Amino acid sequence: MLVNNQNYRTVWMQDKYVYLINQQLLPHKFGIYKSKDYIETANAIKTMIVRGAPAIGATGAYGVAQAALEFKGNNFEKFKKQIEKAEKTLKSTRPTANDLFYAIDFVKNKIMQNITIENAKKDSVKYANEYADWNVELCRKIGEHGNKLINQNQNILTHCNAGALACVDFGTALAPIRISHYNKKNLFVYVDETRPRNQGASLTAWELAQEKIPHAIIADNAAGFFMKKGKIDMIIVGADRIAMNGDVANKIGTYEKAVLAKENNLPFYVAAPLSTFDINSKTGEDIPIEERSSDEILYISGIDKNKKIRKIRIAPEESSAKNPAFDVTPAKYVSGIITERGIIKPMKDDIEKFVKGK
Amino acid sequence: MLVNNQNYRTVWMQDKYVYLINQQLLPHKFGIYKSKDYIETANAIKTMIVRGAPAIGATGAYGVAQAALEFKGNNFEKFKKQIEKAEKTLKSTRPTANDLFYAIDFVKNKIMQNITIENAKKDSVKYANEYADWNVELCRKIGEHGNKLINQNQNILTHCNAGALACVDFGTALAPIRISHYNKKNLFVYVDETRPRNQGASLTAWELAQEKIPHAIIADNAAGFFMKKGKIDMIIVGADRIAMNGDVANKIGTYEKAVLAKENNLPFYVAAPLSTFDINSKTGEDIPIEERSSDEILYISGIDKNKKIRKIRIAPEESSAKNPAFDVTPAKYVSGIITERGIIKPMKDDIEKFVKGK
Repeated sequence: MLVNNQNYRTVWMQDKYVYLINQQLLPHKFGIYKSKDYIETANAIKTMIVRGAPAIGATGAYGVAQAALEFKGNNFEKFKKQIEKAEKTLKSTRPTANDLFYAIDFVKNKIMQNITIENAKKDSVKYANEYADWNVELCRKIGEHGNKLINQNQNILTHCNAGALACVDFGTALAPIRISHYNKKNLFVYVDETRPRNQGASLTAWELAQEKIPHAIIADNAAGFFMKKGKIDMIIVGADRIAMNGDVANKIGTYEKAVLAKENNLPFYVAAPLSTFDINSKTGEDIPIEERSSDEILYISGIDKNKKIRKIRIAPEESSAKNPAFDVTPAKYVSGIITERGIIKPMKDDIEKFVKGK
Repeated sequence: MLVNNQNYRTVWMQDKYVYLINQQLLPHKFGIYKSKDYIETANAIKTMIVRGAPAIGATGAYGVAQAALEFKGNNFEKFKKQIEKAEKTLKSTRPTANDLFYAIDFVKNKIMQNITIENAKKDSVKYANEYADWNVELCRKIGEHGNKLINQNQNILTHCNAGALACVDFGTALAPIRISHYNKKNLFVYVDETRPRNQGASLTAWELAQEKIPHAIIADNAAGFFMKKGKIDMIIVGADRIAMNGDVANKIGTYEKAVLAKENNLPFYVAAPLSTFDINSKTGEDIPIEERSSDEILYISGIDKNKKIRKIRIAPEESSAKNPAFDVTPAKYVSGIITERGIIKPMKDDIEKFVKGK
């Protein structure tokens, strides 16, 4: 992605260092966090310097590579212990992140196929990079397939941040928008603020501003208004998990936008890699919904006029909040799912064909 | 309404002073603003110490009474000039507030029917109080009619603040909830945060907390989630203007909740006095929608840990916002309109019968 007219990934490695776009500071400041060892990298995941499942996965992979490079000595058993210790530390940072586990195991298993520590160290970096590159390619393909759905002069609504910052590059929902923009299509993006954590207003708007893609932030409440006024041509969102019948779990509010899209006869697309399909979830009913801290609703962060980051309370002391983090959008509201292998209809047979053929 | 277990109105008059619950400080601090003359009262309207059309109307009426009481001398022509000057000052504070104009004219016309200044002064206070009392009674009746729609053990969603703070007492959408609560019905209120100005999270939640009505603030994005989960039994909102076919203009996001209510087969009620019907608006198409400052989306206010009120920016410097303040909910989504004279179906014939018979 472009940041200050330079190309960046969300996470990368150079020598023994892991570099991360520091998402704690966004959208107010752009800074790179430089992690010198796997312990610091694990902490960066824990403290949400990096967030978004694919981005966390790649960071975990690089963390394993750091653990390998850090090792001093010739004892392969001790080297193995070091990798296992790093694995445990890195996996404990975000216990529900499937991509993190997958990425760490991928690099670890490649390392362990070696006989010499020297080769294992080389392989650790090679395969961590391979994981990151693979993820970039996945998102780029989602972008290419989604691009075919986007006509010239389109107004597109998106919700939350399914952008490059959540991945290694391109993003999922933002990938088709990026590729269409690179193809000189004239787009305007309506960015749902995405309360309570405001990933739309902070991260998505920031990414679009960096790439000079015309956009405006809107209150989540205003999405329906713009749909009804004919100001929105299509909706593209990401997904956290997709059931085998096409029900989509994604950031809270996605269901509202999907119902409104249907009511206004607008196409509603979900962009996600095939790995988002959960073969253990027959329908959306099987997907558990995380209830997060009410503080996310009662408090908010931003910068004051002196550019100092502040957290303030925006609700009465006596009131509490309910804060479901995700919702499930039934398949009947979804026009199609944009994957790295093409557009899937949100129907059992189509999904099984794609997912089992992956 | 109850505040700290004492009964308050949003605005009242004692001797020559007008007292207002200072809504600039809510929900973080409860304070009474004491205005010593009509100039200060006009400023209180302008600076939104008081907001909400009926509350502003009553405040304007009291402002005229202050202008009358302030007059010294025996020259009725000069007295008349003083009242006209006050009228102009008070009306200029919020140029689009119909209730304000109506209330000021009501008191002024009553005053002018007198021959002596002494009687005119007495009448000014009498009729300003009459205006306020009339508004309280209106809201109480809306509450009584709405109460009949609310069963025992109901979960009710409301949007924005159509509460006592917007009126003189009771509120419109909150009146049925209050009366049901006084009647020992076991209620739980889901309070839409109502971005961008957060009137739900700040004012509605504060009112409910003061009256000990069980409630939780939710992100506007979560209303659909709770409807789909069967956690919400009915929706009651207020209205800014209602067209003669039953289309309802209200705070941005109302349309979204109405569509979601229909999709989930839930009753969606609008509570508003008959004066909210606009005989010049045949349909919602005739109602202009105000576009407000994008700063309402880009910035937010709250209190820091030292209880100091702070305004912070929550979006990237490079991004802008679009901020329609209201939307129009087509009549087909509205189950009924709760007025002081009963429940009206949102249909041309029913509305005309009620409005012309008012």
